[in-house]
Amino acid sequence: MNRFRDEILEQPEVAARLIQKSRAAIDAFGARYRELRPRGFVIAARGSSDHAALYAKYLFGRRNRALVSLAAPSLFTRYASPPRLDGQCVIGISQSGASPDVVAVVEEAVRQGAMTVAITNDPGSKLASVAELVLALDAGKEQSVPASKTYTASVLGLALMSQAIDGDDAFEAALRRVPDSMAGALKVEMDLDKLVPTLDGPRAIVLGRGFNFSTAEEVALKLTETSYVLARAWSVADFEHGPIAVVEPGFPVLLVGGGGSVAGDLESIATRLLDYGCRVVGLFDCAITPRGIKSAAVHDSGLPEELTPLTLAVLGQLLAYHVALARGVDPDQPRALRKITRTW
Amino acid sequence: MNRFRDEILEQPEVAARLIQKSRAAIDAFGARYRELRPRGFVIAARGSSDHAALYAKYLFGRRNRALVSLAAPSLFTRYASPPRLDGQCVIGISQSGASPDVVAVVEEAVRQGAMTVAITNDPGSKLASVAELVLALDAGKEQSVPASKTYTASVLGLALMSQAIDGDDAFEAALRRVPDSMAGALKVEMDLDKLVPTLDGPRAIVLGRGFNFSTAEEVALKLTETSYVLARAWSVADFEHGPIAVVEPGFPVLLVGGGGSVAGDLESIATRLLDYGCRVVGLFDCAITPRGIKSAAVHDSGLPEELTPLTLAVLGQLLAYHVALARGVDPDQPRALRKITRTW
Repeated sequence: MNRFRDEILEQPEVAARLIQKSRAAIDAFGARYRELRPRGFVIAARGSSDHAALYAKYLFGRRNRALVSLAAPSLFTRYASPPRLDGQCVIGISQSGASPDVVAVVEEAVRQGAMTVAITNDPGSKLASVAELVLALDAGKEQSVPASKTYTASVLGLALMSQAIDGDDAFEAALRRVPDSMAGALKVEMDLDKLVPTLDGPRAIVLGRGFNFSTAEEVALKLTETSYVLARAWSVADFEHGPIAVVEPGFPVLLVGGGGSVAGDLESIATRLLDYGCRVVGLFDCAITPRGIKSAAVHDSGLPEELTPLTLAVLGQLLAYHVALARGVDPDQPRALRKITRTW
Repeated sequence: MNRFRDEILEQPEVAARLIQKSRAAIDAFGARYRELRPRGFVIAARGSSDHAALYAKYLFGRRNRALVSLAAPSLFTRYASPPRLDGQCVIGISQSGASPDVVAVVEEAVRQGAMTVAITNDPGSKLASVAELVLALDAGKEQSVPASKTYTASVLGLALMSQAIDGDDAFEAALRRVPDSMAGALKVEMDLDKLVPTLDGPRAIVLGRGFNFSTAEEVALKLTETSYVLARAWSVADFEHGPIAVVEPGFPVLLVGGGGSVAGDLESIATRLLDYGCRVVGLFDCAITPRGIKSAAVHDSGLPEELTPLTLAVLGQLLAYHVALARGVDPDQPRALRKITRTW
């Protein structure tokens, strides 16, 4: 068996456990947030965790009307004067809690008197010891080098934090359906093999928009890390603003869509790319998918668009796993990588 | 002759004109900024302009200690409730001033009573009419589809704004040396042909860090748009956090470096990639360049690291032009693109 796939399959259970066991930490976060009323969020993260931060930019923006800035860690580690963080809620996301650059941002935030939160799978880590509040992901040890369950746990943790700030019955009910929805997504694994022949070449483009732009980035990273396909994600709007020039007949493009307000944008880019003769495949969690796409894995969970990054990340991880197998690569052990990357 | 190359060559003159003619607009910006003391910046932009925004994140962060958030335009155009912008300085960057999504962000900022600035090459545009303050780039009509002079003019405009907030004699003197430094960069054009054979395949990686992470993104976009090389930029730190798994012997990697505080990071990734057998080439504006790189275009302008994105963008544009020629592509007319992209 393969550890990457094992950890992908654990995700419904990890999500259910996080919803249950994080209650005290989430309540403490909500109480402190209401007390301090921060002006906005600054999030420090690297790799997959940075894509969870990108998700938060949309989620906190939409649900909480909060401005989110993704930190540039080098301002804290390489240049003399970091930006002022007063009045901000500064979040560090790191599965290991050992990334020196993420720790450096949170340490500086503490120094400046800002509210700080660590989202980490290791509550004994440096990051957790530095931050005022800790959301422990409790995902169990992640042994495979590519992140899977710690990514979706971070995304779900951020969604729980958003709900703690602005509670809403419908969103609460949707959050409780997440574990079952992820389990449903796992069941369409066999449909992913149809997508593999399109994505096993040297390069690919992955497109999303809005909430699932973060998923597109995460799936592109998973493909790049596990199967050595150089995959590049764009939001549909940025893609049409220039990079679309790169496509030619046969160019592989993966669309990632969760319905909602951006569904029309996905539909329109799909039509345009199919007209150019691109090979367009898709991962969707919605009732109506773009026309003309021959190969797609679809799981309509009924979740609101805001939570579809959770089911779609699961599908994307499985897809990366299958592409890696097709290319004869062991996704557990990407070359040149260690599990904990000590960037600075 | 080629319009893209013509417009690249105009840049020293465009920069000199901007420094001279923008004085009143820059002074007005500085005065208003000191009056309102915004909490931070929110910048809305697409494509090349978004890379100028990324530059501002580092520049305003380092020189002005200001937190910069890059706007997610879909929150304003596709989703119901945009984030709160009160107390922010909201900047829209668009060479045409016609991007509906950039206009939408600035319109919402005006509605919320925030300070607003338009950076645009068309002072008669919608964007300019909406914003309180306008920085006209005065770059002359840009006819080639890939941006060149409007990109460096936007970057220089942001540097002038930073100086208007926190004036400094050394930075002022360096700003005045920018036009000559760009002219110097143009003179190393013949050295770029050495880099072309490495970069004319289907894919490439472009790496920078800190201030020149934005340049790496811009050069990757130029390669993608003009010569259909799928180029992917990463900051060195993010690259080492996972995507480095994608490299193999012979993999093409372009490093972009302007010396300064991150020079050691470029040196260390260069060594690692050369050990893996990658083909590593570089664009540098600094006195000491990473060891072992066989093909590099180097122009040591003596500018501080903060301003090297201006000379390095010039080198990157010329490089994209030469790669396009080698691949038999007309960089003036990328397929599937129009000059003004009306994303929403």
